[in-house]
Amino acid sequence: MNKAIVLTGITTTGTPHLGNYVGAIRPAIAASKDANVAPFYFLADYHALIKCQEPEKIRKSSREIAATWLALGLDTSNTVFYRQSDVPEIMELAWMLCCVTAKGLMNRAHAYKSAVAENEQDGEHDPDKGISMGLFSYPILMAADILMFNASKVPVGKDQIQHIEMARDIAGRFNHIYGEHFVLPEAIIEENGATLAGLDGRKMSKSYNNAIPLFESEKKLRKLINKIKTNSLEPGEPKDPNGCTLFSLYQAFASKAETDEIRRRYAEGISWGEMKQILFEYINNHIAPARERYEALMQAPAHIEEELQEGARKARAISVPFIKTLREAVGISRISL
Amino acid sequence: MNKAIVLTGITTTGTPHLGNYVGAIRPAIAASKDANVAPFYFLADYHALIKCQEPEKIRKSSREIAATWLALGLDTSNTVFYRQSDVPEIMELAWMLCCVTAKGLMNRAHAYKSAVAENEQDGEHDPDKGISMGLFSYPILMAADILMFNASKVPVGKDQIQHIEMARDIAGRFNHIYGEHFVLPEAIIEENGATLAGLDGRKMSKSYNNAIPLFESEKKLRKLINKIKTNSLEPGEPKDPNGCTLFSLYQAFASKAETDEIRRRYAEGISWGEMKQILFEYINNHIAPARERYEALMQAPAHIEEELQEGARKARAISVPFIKTLREAVGISRISL
Repeated sequence: MNKAIVLTGITTTGTPHLGNYVGAIRPAIAASKDANVAPFYFLADYHALIKCQEPEKIRKSSREIAATWLALGLDTSNTVFYRQSDVPEIMELAWMLCCVTAKGLMNRAHAYKSAVAENEQDGEHDPDKGISMGLFSYPILMAADILMFNASKVPVGKDQIQHIEMARDIAGRFNHIYGEHFVLPEAIIEENGATLAGLDGRKMSKSYNNAIPLFESEKKLRKLINKIKTNSLEPGEPKDPNGCTLFSLYQAFASKAETDEIRRRYAEGISWGEMKQILFEYINNHIAPARERYEALMQAPAHIEEELQEGARKARAISVPFIKTLREAVGISRISL
Repeated sequence: MNKAIVLTGITTTGTPHLGNYVGAIRPAIAASKDANVAPFYFLADYHALIKCQEPEKIRKSSREIAATWLALGLDTSNTVFYRQSDVPEIMELAWMLCCVTAKGLMNRAHAYKSAVAENEQDGEHDPDKGISMGLFSYPILMAADILMFNASKVPVGKDQIQHIEMARDIAGRFNHIYGEHFVLPEAIIEENGATLAGLDGRKMSKSYNNAIPLFESEKKLRKLINKIKTNSLEPGEPKDPNGCTLFSLYQAFASKAETDEIRRRYAEGISWGEMKQILFEYINNHIAPARERYEALMQAPAHIEEELQEGARKARAISVPFIKTLREAVGISRISL
């Protein structure tokens, strides 16, 4: 049986937070141990350049993200875990794909359109103000990431479904012109956790500045959990778990039985103080062993680098011969009679 | 003294013709022997994908162009003569540049604007119809070609001046964000020959289908020259050399003294038949030795390939360490403390 190739990229522009963990990292780590799956996970450092022009931030984030995945027990014997920039064939493929991609397709990308809409709302004369060619063409780079390894499944949030459809379009167009080289990828929608609530109750997200970093120190973790917004119900008053950030965070980590027990405590009128204490302890216990490994890894960059190099070797064992085939297909080859 | 780095790319989508020879190849070959110049000449096969989706055509053109330049005596000891696709660092650089290039800059590119204007004239609903992302973003790839080797001089036709200005803009933007890595290139406008007339009197160009291939057989060359349009003046009637295709072709090859002599013959009323015979003989004598070498080279693909490989080695001796520096500059590097 052929394993399903599942591909996930992590843009190296921030520090992993609980929302990332629950929504993307935890299921990905689980999949890395699934013998029926061939996971390709990569640090999307070339994507990072689109939104971040601070080199040190990208470097720091790359280290943190790699250390996080390894600390959480990523099975690198079953997974290809690599840095996008270590596979330069992806950039070559991106150009090949550019040449078969209609500009009109990019005009319709949500991220681009919403940037234009924002400019128009601001009364900007130039609707493209502040929009780089990186932002405009990143669905093509994403298609190259996916098609380079002929990934069949791509776990994404709902906002990314369109990009997978674009990758399918582009792959289909290339296949039509140059022969069947690419598998058409499918989006796997991550329903759960993608909407873990943050400190202010909105979706936990770097951009809302409401995130709880995954491997924050115990002290800082407690402080952040204590900052989570609640309503003003007194201890003893029954509370509604639905829409409660504390409850939803607890639920994201605890078992069904544990969650039911807390639901009962809400009905009984648990105090916010106690609930915060319970939540802190639960999350802290859950992540403490990984946090320890994380801290050790952060001090062992050579070890992280070794893992990424090994991943790059595995990735390039595929990308190097494949790009050669693709070059031949488009007419780029050594001189011959 | 530092040599001036002069860069020229030749898109591999056609067979070199007399117009290419006079306008671009001949001066480039001369420059290849100039000890004050460091020429970088390359087969722009990744550019070829923008306009050509026929793999065999690109392959054939690559062989013909490489054989042409070598047959004409390109001094490869002083020149870096390479195939664009053999320097994958260029594709990486293109992406880095994408991320610092405003989309608005590309909106203003002449080639894109004229494609849009054509659609609008045709009453197309979608102004971007038929326009690929390759066409839209090719000024960025061109900037990468130039900046990869920090070329200071780029010989171009007038229609390409804007692209050099864009490369300067992009280089300046990158330097501003990440430090001074790039030399701002200058366009060298090729005034002469760029407008060599073709069979029908219009500029000799592949796209007008009025070109005389450079290394056509003697028989075919004669036939094509006989097909050149003239007016109906009889032998003995004085003729105006200005605007005469035969005369301008002769002038492009002959010395000043020889040209003056023919001007005199025009005044005396030379017949078109005789003038065509003179022109054929002149051009044929001029290119015969190179044509012989060309034919031999076309049968020796391994030799051509060897030259290109040697060029790639010289090019990558520059591009590999430079891309490493650039990666560091933007924040892409091995994991470290």
